[in-house]
Amino acid sequence: MALVVQKYGGSSVADADGVKRVAQRIVATKKAGNDVVVVVSAMGDTTDELIDLAEQISPLPPGRELDMLLTAGERISMALLAMAIANLGHEARSFTGSQAGVITDGSHGKARIIDVTPGRIRSALDEGSICIVAGFQGVSQDSKDITTLGRGGSDTTAVALAAALNADVCEIYSDVDGIFTADPRIVPSARRIPQISFEEMLEMAACGAKILHLRCVEYARRYNMPIHVRSSFSQRVGTWVRDSIEATDTEDGEMEQAIISGVAHDRSEAKITVVGVPDKVGEAATIFQVLSDAEINLDMIVQNVSAAATGRTDISFTLPRTDGQTAMAALNKVKERIGFESLRYDDRIGKVSLIGAGMRSHPGVTARLFGAIANAGVNIEMISTSEIRISVIVDQDDIDAAVQSAHAAFDLDADQVEAVVYGGTGR
Amino acid sequence: MALVVQKYGGSSVADADGVKRVAQRIVATKKAGNDVVVVVSAMGDTTDELIDLAEQISPLPPGRELDMLLTAGERISMALLAMAIANLGHEARSFTGSQAGVITDGSHGKARIIDVTPGRIRSALDEGSICIVAGFQGVSQDSKDITTLGRGGSDTTAVALAAALNADVCEIYSDVDGIFTADPRIVPSARRIPQISFEEMLEMAACGAKILHLRCVEYARRYNMPIHVRSSFSQRVGTWVRDSIEATDTEDGEMEQAIISGVAHDRSEAKITVVGVPDKVGEAATIFQVLSDAEINLDMIVQNVSAAATGRTDISFTLPRTDGQTAMAALNKVKERIGFESLRYDDRIGKVSLIGAGMRSHPGVTARLFGAIANAGVNIEMISTSEIRISVIVDQDDIDAAVQSAHAAFDLDADQVEAVVYGGTGR
Repeated sequence: MALVVQKYGGSSVADADGVKRVAQRIVATKKAGNDVVVVVSAMGDTTDELIDLAEQISPLPPGRELDMLLTAGERISMALLAMAIANLGHEARSFTGSQAGVITDGSHGKARIIDVTPGRIRSALDEGSICIVAGFQGVSQDSKDITTLGRGGSDTTAVALAAALNADVCEIYSDVDGIFTADPRIVPSARRIPQISFEEMLEMAACGAKILHLRCVEYARRYNMPIHVRSSFSQRVGTWVRDSIEATDTEDGEMEQAIISGVAHDRSEAKITVVGVPDKVGEAATIFQVLSDAEINLDMIVQNVSAAATGRTDISFTLPRTDGQTAMAALNKVKERIGFESLRYDDRIGKVSLIGAGMRSHPGVTARLFGAIANAGVNIEMISTSEIRISVIVDQDDIDAAVQSAHAAFDLDADQVEAVVYGGTGR
Repeated sequence: MALVVQKYGGSSVADADGVKRVAQRIVATKKAGNDVVVVVSAMGDTTDELIDLAEQISPLPPGRELDMLLTAGERISMALLAMAIANLGHEARSFTGSQAGVITDGSHGKARIIDVTPGRIRSALDEGSICIVAGFQGVSQDSKDITTLGRGGSDTTAVALAAALNADVCEIYSDVDGIFTADPRIVPSARRIPQISFEEMLEMAACGAKILHLRCVEYARRYNMPIHVRSSFSQRVGTWVRDSIEATDTEDGEMEQAIISGVAHDRSEAKITVVGVPDKVGEAATIFQVLSDAEINLDMIVQNVSAAATGRTDISFTLPRTDGQTAMAALNKVKERIGFESLRYDDRIGKVSLIGAGMRSHPGVTARLFGAIANAGVNIEMISTSEIRISVIVDQDDIDAAVQSAHAAFDLDADQVEAVVYGGTGR
């Protein structure tokens, strides 16, 4: 008997019919002989509606109270889901994050999970019950106040619970069939990736693939918890995210042969260039200290070689577009002190990333990628690499062309129709 | 510095504007130098909407999950209210029933409060915070599951918290100005009652006055917690419900002089008559055991003297109309065993009750009441009395006439315009 943790997003439980459909899927998993723990998000637009209510009351609601408000959303969906399962003749009990033992720090709106103590869940499972747990929420260790985990929080709840319960698999359900080699809206021939390693998935998530949130993948990697990303609207096998060694063992070495897993893109960044920075020791450090104090997460950073004639250099970096104004204001304040000449802001950019564990041992990858992008007539503005990733910044209007060209250059286009597999958890 | 517990019902916080209005009232109480604990119900129709959602999912949802669902309602209203207060520059923290220490038994949907351990509330008050507590909900002592208190639950939460915190007063806000000598929709000249004793209020509540729920008054009486019933839409003083001795002391003996407090009526009952019951020892006991096993609360019970010729008698009783079918079915099952002749069911009745502590020492009250009802041309079907109450069952169509006639006969009609008092908690 396996222990399966399933997570259903808001689009899967958007209305009463959705709740009933998900309930049937859960009961089928239980009937197949598994213990089942389900993590559920708030129904459809509930969270947005609650935020709207809060905005009618206060322009800047206290974090503690906003968290208290928003957690009402999962409370509703989880109770309804438990009712729907009971209606199918199976015992189900719902638990808040606090009841499920999701212990966090006290950062309202973006709390981090410190510990998971799922004693009540374990007892309920031992009594044969299906457990429904509210995603996205926990309770702070010190103040005992209710917290929320921020974006992607329900995925993180699911993986954290799965790890604490030593589950066999964590299934993350959404309205897409898994992780694809590129966004199918840009590359219609994109293939579903059957398997991907934690490291590659981390790079994909960091580079704009929105199916799994970064924190959730980090958590899964740390606890070596396999994730099965799949659709709640079909019975198809999705994408397995797991340790690369295990994956190689279990799937005929398929992972080892694939050089490139996929092409990700991100339209959410902006680029700032600090022009004419005096090329003295510590000037760059000051710039980045100012940005750090403003709590801005930078992504790519490029510093040109300084021009000998002037003794000055340009420093460019990318950052979330939503932080653009804050960063510009913070830098302008120290213009005199640092003595740079000017600031340039460009939010008409995009990032295209090639991800694959195989590129470690294939030195030709960079050249082939740049060649493909050049062939598409696209200019590269910035470059950043890791062991298993190459990212380039291009003009916003060139993103689609760059993605398509890169996808084709690495033979990622589909050459076969997906096999449809019915039933079971895909294991 | 006084400690004031205030309770606001769903109609007072029906929308964002209502929440803001209530927040201003709370802040005014705080600014007047009081510690303030607020108990709040779910906004407007929220609870009904959640029940509607549950009904779309399951015809008979498990009580545990229905409680989990419904408690989302107060979670929303209390968080919004805390935000609105913060927006006015005062610190406010919201607490669920569980966080506030409202410990109940495990009867989902109608849990009883076993204990209140408001340690977190006390700490927050000591830190200068206004406390917002979810009404209607608690946590079960044994299973730690979330429970709801059933009808009138938020009032009970308020009184229980006030008692546990040793508050100076519990203010219950609704959309009416207090307790009236009769329903103003039936008797336009009805007066607001400035003060009423716990005992009289208990009888009023039991006889159909809907402003305060029976359980809440019972709780207040047990802990001698004065209640001030008033409107959240005006600054008028409302009705004080308190111990009769204190009331006499503080208000120039006004209580002692009033023979009758008011006239209550109830349209929610039905009457069942068991016809031709063999007049043997134990027959009546069997009938009431059957009804007790079906968990039906009876109100008035009348047994006729048996006719000597037949050795049979009729037994009539009233009960909540909603239990009518259950009671009829339960009795029909034992018809052969008991040997009664037939059952009659009448739901076109109403109960009119005269309540007043003064009637203890005024023997003419009963005669005057029956005279007034007779003068109105109304026939009395059943009679029941206590030390401070006389109730009669009349035809449904005669309720208004009986109420009006009784109200006039005891000089309850208003002869002056209500004084409007501004500010303060009315103390």
